[in-house]
Amino acid sequence: MTTQDSRTHAIGWHKDYVTGPRPGVRVPVRRVHLTTGDDVTLYDTSGPYTDASADTDVRRGLEPLRDEWIAARGDTEEYPGRPVRPEDDGRKAAPGGDLRNLDAVFPGRPRLPRRGRPGQPVTQLAYARRGEITPEMEFVALRENVSPQTVRDEIAAGRAVLPANVNHPEIEPMIIGKSFLVKVNANIGNSAVTSSIEEEVEKMTWATRWGADTVMDLSTGRNIHTTREWVLRNSPVPIGTVPLYQALEKVDGRAEELSWEIYKDTVIEQAEQGVDYMTVHAGVLLRYVPLTARRKTGIVSRGGSIMAAWCLAHHQENFLYTHFDELCEILAAYDVTYSLGDGLRPGSIADANDEAQFAELRTLGELNTVAREHQVQTMIEGPGHVPMHKIKENIDLQQEICDGAPFYTLGPLTTDIAPAYDHITSGIGAAMIAWWGTAMLCYVTPKEHLGLPDRDDVKTGVITYKIAAHAADLAKGHPGAQAWDDALSDARFEFRWEDQFNLALDPDTARAFHDETLPAEPAKTAHFCSMCGPKFCSMRISQDIRKAHGGAGQAVGGDAGDAEVVAGMAAKSAEFAAGGNRVYLPLAD
Amino acid sequence: MTTQDSRTHAIGWHKDYVTGPRPGVRVPVRRVHLTTGDDVTLYDTSGPYTDASADTDVRRGLEPLRDEWIAARGDTEEYPGRPVRPEDDGRKAAPGGDLRNLDAVFPGRPRLPRRGRPGQPVTQLAYARRGEITPEMEFVALRENVSPQTVRDEIAAGRAVLPANVNHPEIEPMIIGKSFLVKVNANIGNSAVTSSIEEEVEKMTWATRWGADTVMDLSTGRNIHTTREWVLRNSPVPIGTVPLYQALEKVDGRAEELSWEIYKDTVIEQAEQGVDYMTVHAGVLLRYVPLTARRKTGIVSRGGSIMAAWCLAHHQENFLYTHFDELCEILAAYDVTYSLGDGLRPGSIADANDEAQFAELRTLGELNTVAREHQVQTMIEGPGHVPMHKIKENIDLQQEICDGAPFYTLGPLTTDIAPAYDHITSGIGAAMIAWWGTAMLCYVTPKEHLGLPDRDDVKTGVITYKIAAHAADLAKGHPGAQAWDDALSDARFEFRWEDQFNLALDPDTARAFHDETLPAEPAKTAHFCSMCGPKFCSMRISQDIRKAHGGAGQAVGGDAGDAEVVAGMAAKSAEFAAGGNRVYLPLAD
Repeated sequence: MTTQDSRTHAIGWHKDYVTGPRPGVRVPVRRVHLTTGDDVTLYDTSGPYTDASADTDVRRGLEPLRDEWIAARGDTEEYPGRPVRPEDDGRKAAPGGDLRNLDAVFPGRPRLPRRGRPGQPVTQLAYARRGEITPEMEFVALRENVSPQTVRDEIAAGRAVLPANVNHPEIEPMIIGKSFLVKVNANIGNSAVTSSIEEEVEKMTWATRWGADTVMDLSTGRNIHTTREWVLRNSPVPIGTVPLYQALEKVDGRAEELSWEIYKDTVIEQAEQGVDYMTVHAGVLLRYVPLTARRKTGIVSRGGSIMAAWCLAHHQENFLYTHFDELCEILAAYDVTYSLGDGLRPGSIADANDEAQFAELRTLGELNTVAREHQVQTMIEGPGHVPMHKIKENIDLQQEICDGAPFYTLGPLTTDIAPAYDHITSGIGAAMIAWWGTAMLCYVTPKEHLGLPDRDDVKTGVITYKIAAHAADLAKGHPGAQAWDDALSDARFEFRWEDQFNLALDPDTARAFHDETLPAEPAKTAHFCSMCGPKFCSMRISQDIRKAHGGAGQAVGGDAGDAEVVAGMAAKSAEFAAGGNRVYLPLAD
Repeated sequence: MTTQDSRTHAIGWHKDYVTGPRPGVRVPVRRVHLTTGDDVTLYDTSGPYTDASADTDVRRGLEPLRDEWIAARGDTEEYPGRPVRPEDDGRKAAPGGDLRNLDAVFPGRPRLPRRGRPGQPVTQLAYARRGEITPEMEFVALRENVSPQTVRDEIAAGRAVLPANVNHPEIEPMIIGKSFLVKVNANIGNSAVTSSIEEEVEKMTWATRWGADTVMDLSTGRNIHTTREWVLRNSPVPIGTVPLYQALEKVDGRAEELSWEIYKDTVIEQAEQGVDYMTVHAGVLLRYVPLTARRKTGIVSRGGSIMAAWCLAHHQENFLYTHFDELCEILAAYDVTYSLGDGLRPGSIADANDEAQFAELRTLGELNTVAREHQVQTMIEGPGHVPMHKIKENIDLQQEICDGAPFYTLGPLTTDIAPAYDHITSGIGAAMIAWWGTAMLCYVTPKEHLGLPDRDDVKTGVITYKIAAHAADLAKGHPGAQAWDDALSDARFEFRWEDQFNLALDPDTARAFHDETLPAEPAKTAHFCSMCGPKFCSMRISQDIRKAHGGAGQAVGGDAGDAEVVAGMAAKSAEFAAGGNRVYLPLAD
């Protein structure tokens, strides 16, 4: 466990802001200082916590940056909202009153929830369709280094989403779509078995510090409502949830007692708090459940299995499917984005791309169409466990069936044999599917299948998925993506160790690994490293060659311009060319 | 650091042997015991160390299993061999005598080196071409579960190699080729900066315990000869080296003082010791060196940079290229396999697939043809740093240019931005390139670019690469590969935690991660786990559904056959089907 706090100023870079034409749009960036005097600018998700000049306090929450923008649109209203009840936190209402742990209640500024005026969808999709460029769109355009028109067009076409609940004004807007940088989601959440509110807030800031673009709060134990409030008020990134988990807590875990009313109440509760996107398992239809009966691992999605159990218990169609229109109306009033859950995703290599999975995908395609009619932003969730040769079919089918809606996949894991290393089994699949078009990757930590991730696991999961996402950005030829690799490789070639560390996805670990073998300060300026020692350093020899040969002009040490050497080598080269490049006899002679 | 020793009997599985028609061919396998009473049989590379009935002693070395087979062929002769000199261990010959650390000399049974009788290639390729099926071929056929004829044919065609120096009789034969399981190499080796002989031997046995199929000893410091002797005499897997490293030590690190004579002497020294394959950088031609001058990271292969420096210093063609025929004759006499080194491989994303890299590849193709004429087994080394979209071109070109010779790649790393996580950046590329045809993957550890791998790094590197290799075996549809995943997924679905751990690539870590959250013994038989708690366990709910629905017959708990429930569900299903699958109105109505 590193001792570095997630809410402290960093070493080797500083938080800066890029501004555009519209006042108030201030996009955070990470400026990495090189020893050459140059800066390298990187995308930053860590929020004000890493801004040395920002005054943050988790008990107060972040500044509501978007409040003004939302109010200025004039299409929302404040209202008293649904009262918070003890059962929202998984506690029984007792005759004596509220048994919630009131000491835990978030102490920050009081606020009234906001919603769209009746019949008024207040979604970024609705604005984009009307041709409006919102401040949020301008923000992400600056952040992604594209035009605001591109952002608007991609949202309008349903090929990108900008999750931004009107009740989560604290976020720094971001966009999810295949034309943009590949994003990474980190899951956090307490469970009945372990963990506390503070831990979850800390996991959220920790995850965003390492690069999580969104965070899903999957809490299932007590204090769900209160934990979420703390997370939302302190989160600079969009927060996603699976409302079904909380709804199930409200009926003491008895799936058959779930109802549309309880679910709807939970969705409104969460929408008023500011949840930016919700996973909804509306594609698990009664008739698909039997398709899973002969699978190796049945239904592995929690939400999917809950809805399947409900369907079978009542022998009725999934109430999320039958009430989908109504659900759309609610989501449109807060600009909550759908994440249409793949409740029947495969949980093993054997079950990949089977009938159950693709039957549900076709239903998600239908629901995507309905959601768009309601002007609700929508992304589609994807698997799961899929061997490499079956990955491409997943993204191709999803893009076709869901008319280009953003795909949001969990991995996929490319083999089942490595519990404790599923960040790696899935990082492989994640990189590939993102290259082929997945817009956001849900991380998997080393604890997948085994236990709840701790702080170290969260970091490992996020870093692994940032690697997958960036590898995909490179493979997609995303403009500017390679500049980061180039800067690091330049630093490596020129033995600028500190620059190499500071440019690394994880500077702390890179520095620590280097210091394990060569701890002394001079080693960080040495023109060799511990792998090969001074005699065998290919980089050093290569530098010497470059100096001798007069290449690139990047040589370290200054005598690259030795005119005599260069001229001599040139003469030799000319001689060689004049010989028809055949000075040396073909080998087989 | 785990405290488990690499040379102890394992928990949860036992070493067993599979035998075929020929007496004496005993192929090791790992039998994992399931709580169901069944066994799962896995490929095993760990040698006699994990055999509870074997009496091993690193000071004596392993039994020379192949001695009889080699002698029986009657085509080799024992001879006094080249005397070991102080400079072989990087020590100066002093007037007072041998300054080697004689205490360190390997104490095991004395042996004379063996070589092919004059003019007699004693390679598996030569035998295969003559239509012979050697005991080594029979061994790998059993090991890979294919016919001996397939093994012979693949070797004869040059599409596979079976590295087996006549002076390394201790190995358990293995095969490298795209028709077989994807293999993993682990690099070990001391350097001028750190580490000892004992550590290197321990790293070798540790790496093979976790699944390394071959090990390269890349030592560059003192005691190179002696370290290699210990490693070889104790290694159940083929050992590879880069003779150039030792040759350079003999000239005190001055590349320009290298010569064919010093190199040749080193190759003979190592061939007599039993090195099974050697990386030879014969494709780094003088005219290619200028092609690297404008690269971002020049030449990053140590061997490549050494040969480039030599070429430039002398302005002569690479002596490995000009003496390649003679080198072939030496290798053929010991059955040393070529690993034709890619000295100009890209060291950064920016340099991938450039002119220098592919120019060298074309020369390696030429050399492959020459090597085959000499009946020397040959594989081709590949990059390096390559973004995902440029990976396939590497394997396709290599297969075309080198007429199907096995490709042996280092990663490739799919991005440069994650020092300390390059096992992951490269594991992604490794899985992909292996799916597309790479036969062996050279592992990359978390310390790549930063320092020398320790024991934990070796383990992490091997496990990561076993994941990549197995994911590729699955994607290639290798017969039987999925049985491992299926067995683990069955165990997962049926909450057989101990079976899940024992089937994992790394049982120790899987068990430890599980125990972090739910340490008690009953938790290992619980029908839920710490991620979701009992209420939310999708597997449990899914089991309940299966029971209710009468699926698969694999339900835990016994009441899967509840005839009433099954009949009731069937009636409901029939009803549903009779309604034209349209009981529920289309959503958009």
